[in-house]
Amino acid sequence: MTKYEVTFLPENKRVEVEAGTTLLEAADEAGVYINSLCGGEGICGECRLQVISGHAKADKDAIGFFSGEEIQNGYVLACQTAVADNLEVLVPARSRLEMEKIITEGTPLAYSQPGKVSLRRIAQDPATLREPLVSKVYLELPEPSISDNISDIDRITRGLRQKLAYSSYDFSLSCLQNLAEMIRQQDWQVTATVAKHNDTGRVLRLQGGNTADSNYGLAVDVGTTTVVVQLVHLETGEVIGVEGNHNQQARYGEDVISRMVFACTRGSTKILHQAVVANINALTLALAREKGIDTEDINGLVAAGNTTMSHFLLGLTPCSLRLQPYVPTATVYPQIPAREIAININANAIVEIMPSVASYIGGDIVAGVLACGLADQPEIKCLIDVGTNGEIAIGNNEWIVCCSASAGPAFEGGGSKWGMRATKGAIEKLKIDEGRVTFETIGQAKPRGICGSGFIDAIYELARNRIIGQDGKFNLSVTDRRIIVADDGPQYVLAFPEETETGQAVTIAEIDISNLIKSKGAVFAALKSLVDYVGLSFGQLEAIYLAGGFGSSLDIGKGIAIGLLPDIDQQRIQFIGNSSIMGARMALLSGAAFDKAIDISRKMTNIELSNYPPFMNEFIAALFLPHTHGDLFPSVHY
Amino acid sequence: MTKYEVTFLPENKRVEVEAGTTLLEAADEAGVYINSLCGGEGICGECRLQVISGHAKADKDAIGFFSGEEIQNGYVLACQTAVADNLEVLVPARSRLEMEKIITEGTPLAYSQPGKVSLRRIAQDPATLREPLVSKVYLELPEPSISDNISDIDRITRGLRQKLAYSSYDFSLSCLQNLAEMIRQQDWQVTATVAKHNDTGRVLRLQGGNTADSNYGLAVDVGTTTVVVQLVHLETGEVIGVEGNHNQQARYGEDVISRMVFACTRGSTKILHQAVVANINALTLALAREKGIDTEDINGLVAAGNTTMSHFLLGLTPCSLRLQPYVPTATVYPQIPAREIAININANAIVEIMPSVASYIGGDIVAGVLACGLADQPEIKCLIDVGTNGEIAIGNNEWIVCCSASAGPAFEGGGSKWGMRATKGAIEKLKIDEGRVTFETIGQAKPRGICGSGFIDAIYELARNRIIGQDGKFNLSVTDRRIIVADDGPQYVLAFPEETETGQAVTIAEIDISNLIKSKGAVFAALKSLVDYVGLSFGQLEAIYLAGGFGSSLDIGKGIAIGLLPDIDQQRIQFIGNSSIMGARMALLSGAAFDKAIDISRKMTNIELSNYPPFMNEFIAALFLPHTHGDLFPSVHY
Repeated sequence: MTKYEVTFLPENKRVEVEAGTTLLEAADEAGVYINSLCGGEGICGECRLQVISGHAKADKDAIGFFSGEEIQNGYVLACQTAVADNLEVLVPARSRLEMEKIITEGTPLAYSQPGKVSLRRIAQDPATLREPLVSKVYLELPEPSISDNISDIDRITRGLRQKLAYSSYDFSLSCLQNLAEMIRQQDWQVTATVAKHNDTGRVLRLQGGNTADSNYGLAVDVGTTTVVVQLVHLETGEVIGVEGNHNQQARYGEDVISRMVFACTRGSTKILHQAVVANINALTLALAREKGIDTEDINGLVAAGNTTMSHFLLGLTPCSLRLQPYVPTATVYPQIPAREIAININANAIVEIMPSVASYIGGDIVAGVLACGLADQPEIKCLIDVGTNGEIAIGNNEWIVCCSASAGPAFEGGGSKWGMRATKGAIEKLKIDEGRVTFETIGQAKPRGICGSGFIDAIYELARNRIIGQDGKFNLSVTDRRIIVADDGPQYVLAFPEETETGQAVTIAEIDISNLIKSKGAVFAALKSLVDYVGLSFGQLEAIYLAGGFGSSLDIGKGIAIGLLPDIDQQRIQFIGNSSIMGARMALLSGAAFDKAIDISRKMTNIELSNYPPFMNEFIAALFLPHTHGDLFPSVHY
Repeated sequence: MTKYEVTFLPENKRVEVEAGTTLLEAADEAGVYINSLCGGEGICGECRLQVISGHAKADKDAIGFFSGEEIQNGYVLACQTAVADNLEVLVPARSRLEMEKIITEGTPLAYSQPGKVSLRRIAQDPATLREPLVSKVYLELPEPSISDNISDIDRITRGLRQKLAYSSYDFSLSCLQNLAEMIRQQDWQVTATVAKHNDTGRVLRLQGGNTADSNYGLAVDVGTTTVVVQLVHLETGEVIGVEGNHNQQARYGEDVISRMVFACTRGSTKILHQAVVANINALTLALAREKGIDTEDINGLVAAGNTTMSHFLLGLTPCSLRLQPYVPTATVYPQIPAREIAININANAIVEIMPSVASYIGGDIVAGVLACGLADQPEIKCLIDVGTNGEIAIGNNEWIVCCSASAGPAFEGGGSKWGMRATKGAIEKLKIDEGRVTFETIGQAKPRGICGSGFIDAIYELARNRIIGQDGKFNLSVTDRRIIVADDGPQYVLAFPEETETGQAVTIAEIDISNLIKSKGAVFAALKSLVDYVGLSFGQLEAIYLAGGFGSSLDIGKGIAIGLLPDIDQQRIQFIGNSSIMGARMALLSGAAFDKAIDISRKMTNIELSNYPPFMNEFIAALFLPHTHGDLFPSVHY
């Protein structure tokens, strides 16, 4: 078969492919990651490339995505273009899927340090014992005698009862089948691997001698965008390593809704299930190799994700999640052996998924509530986790209310011309002083666009400089060479063409500002609705924890100033980073913490804002900078 | 390859085999069952055949088993003789392994009728519900609404809680994976298959619509000699069918000890495991076909067997069972999915093994205790199950003591020249009056030998006629043409050559009588030791239940008269038949009964007679007809 060489610029990566291979497939093979939100269907128009040399022509169905000039300049859709010549192609900055700053760790807080995890202790044992979800217990058992001839598993159980506090023990058949020889050959020295299953200790493995030190687990954050795996030593609690990658499901849809549609209209749940399992296996293998650890010694995995991700991880059809009345197959998931979902760790290892509350309140937010200690004390605290959906929980050790508000993609850089995720080249901090714009980009690269925290800064700075009014509209009486009025309305130039990587100006348009105000309005209105629902005021919140990618580079003062966050003492607002993986690790390190997560999930009352009439009024009142009711923001002055 | 034809007489079965095949393998292929206690090792000498035509020669190692005359007459060992010619061979009567009278059912007693099984009832439900180990529950669930949008499995659990009394429910992953679609397509009508696992309901299957009527289970008696399977409808409790066959393990050793040796000296546990699984699968398939039932609808199996058989069934190495201090791998066995041991019923079906007490007190005796209701009331009762080992349990609803006494093979027809199992042609009843012997044989066939109950009758009748003394020795002053004095001592002719199938006289020798007196002495001494141990007298036993193959044709009066059974009111001694399968079926039909079996097994105190000094004195005192201390048998007069 004829082969051709394709060179991808600017990275200058080459690959030889067979004739007929699509450019998207060739890019994949070359290790060049190209945006493809529709999964190669020719629908999203994201995978555009410019052919520099060689012959390739835009498919006629793809032509609608390009202007006449672009077609002239050799623009094609990678997924719709078969290779039939040696080619040099340029991947435009906007088409590149670059590695984001994946938040792989939370900021240390109450529970984020293993040592601070509140653990069950055993009264009879003077030593301070941690009780991870999967323990390894070394036993030196007395040899049987005619006066003490209980069965081998009764002898092991008797030994375990002295070290663990389960009310009963289950043994898998594989543990028993050669036990009699093994334990006698090993002079009654044996290490039991025991998983917590409610009040029962499930004995997964019995090994001769003392192998208690080789006991590892995985804490996994299954995000819609990224998957993060922490390799944890279950006896010391130490995080041995951490790796993240893009959720491979992104090929089949950018957000949960499009993935659910993909799965349900085509019966393709299995494809999405396998994609995320492949993510976890790849990260796990990389970690194990890097750290010189045998994957056979990984005995447990706890994953946290939203309800859709949790369903995909278990291979459950998500179709009823997205349609009224929004019913998940499960919210508390069964404990399963790793082999049942083809996770490549010890075949008897257990997999637990952090429990969900409802279709749109997932295990990630339950993990966050666990991690930030919201449910520990009588003081009332609040957790805000903002991604495409904003999830909010308020409560204490007795009650928790929560809700999910559709914040839209604005905070993640979606839905606007120059919006982008928090990846290399994104403007993440920005200041405007007397017509001068200074900014910081991720990776100190030339700007390619603007991410969520950059947008918040921009809106605040534009309003502070009175370039826009408190309604978000441009004040066209201001004279500023950065203000341009185009066909689609006024916009402000944040970076001129000569400053940017693409050679085009990075701008923020009035419509972008309006979208962002809607997003911040939705989050604030949801928060206000919840606070009102429980009859509190913001001042009564002991703490507000900000979780998720959104929070990490946000200026809290500016967040308050635009009316995203309530006007309370800034000291009480804290970033906690990736609280989802923090919670998953806590559950891995403490069976009691996992029980607590189940308790939390059952205790959380979900307020469906779409059915809660006061929300709409709150939303409308919040579409102003900082808010229609200025008295809610006494410290904010423009 | 050269092929030869072998014809087996008297059945006239022909088979064509390749040169080099042993006659034992050829017989197997022809469907001619030949005794082979050593499993084809040339050790037991049981598989003797007489070559009638064609050339075959006794292997030189096998010659020791034959007299010169026998060698002359063409006798060979089937397992040591390779086919190298067309052959006609005669299978002597003694070498044939014929189907025994397999006891497939117990006599109805307290618990043997499903209707009388004491079952857990649910207070909230006015209907009388049985709760089998695996229930099928049909649910008509309310459709979810926005005000009732709990997860699908929470909805199913809520439905189950109204019908079953488990404290929690576990779902297998396979139940969940396509649940959302299935349950919506089926308009929320679903049938759950739920297995009891301690206090948890394990949901094994979810099916659309109402399939509650298709719920079957298997009660299995895994005997050392025979395997019996009952197919039971779990909702009605009806026994749909029953089948029995020879334990295929018999090829590898006749008794548990020789099979343990086979398994342990060669690491062949797997072979014995597969043999008994093959037994169960063959019986199950035959039953399912005969009754037109889909094996997929068989959702549970409860097996009862001695501790060795239970170990083999699960594939556990039995090596430590037979050596001091006699330690089993397990006495309470894990609940396992049928697929884990390749039982060909529904892959998610559960297998439970009746719990054992110790190496020589197995699940069969625990099942028997359950079945006869010994542990139900304050009245003290006794169960005697006599095979090669005699197991005895005495107790009530508060305590149970038990022991195992090596009765030897005498009661099963072993160890004497004309002893045979209770198969076709065995003399099972016998009377001697004024030198005239009348007898009954199994299957009204010509006598081939004498089985356990026949021996008991014979000894009683010989003593009553003063042909032997109360010490079991022949009274040589009696003149009787039936008394012959051979090289190996005196013997009594029960059937003359012209009456028998073999053309040889069936006799009982002084040495046989001596062995039988030892056997009955061991059983009686064990019983007496247990009664003394708990400070009782025989008169305080409310009932004595006789179980096992031994009991079915025994004359109770003669059993008392020879001192095997204590001299109490005969009305209080009852046969209950196969109490092992009765108990297994009870546990299958009632999870509460299975719990009770576990409770019984934990409550039973095993007295190791080899370490209990009074036993030896009791044994010596019992080596007399009926007993050295005649006052123990006031009603017996010879």
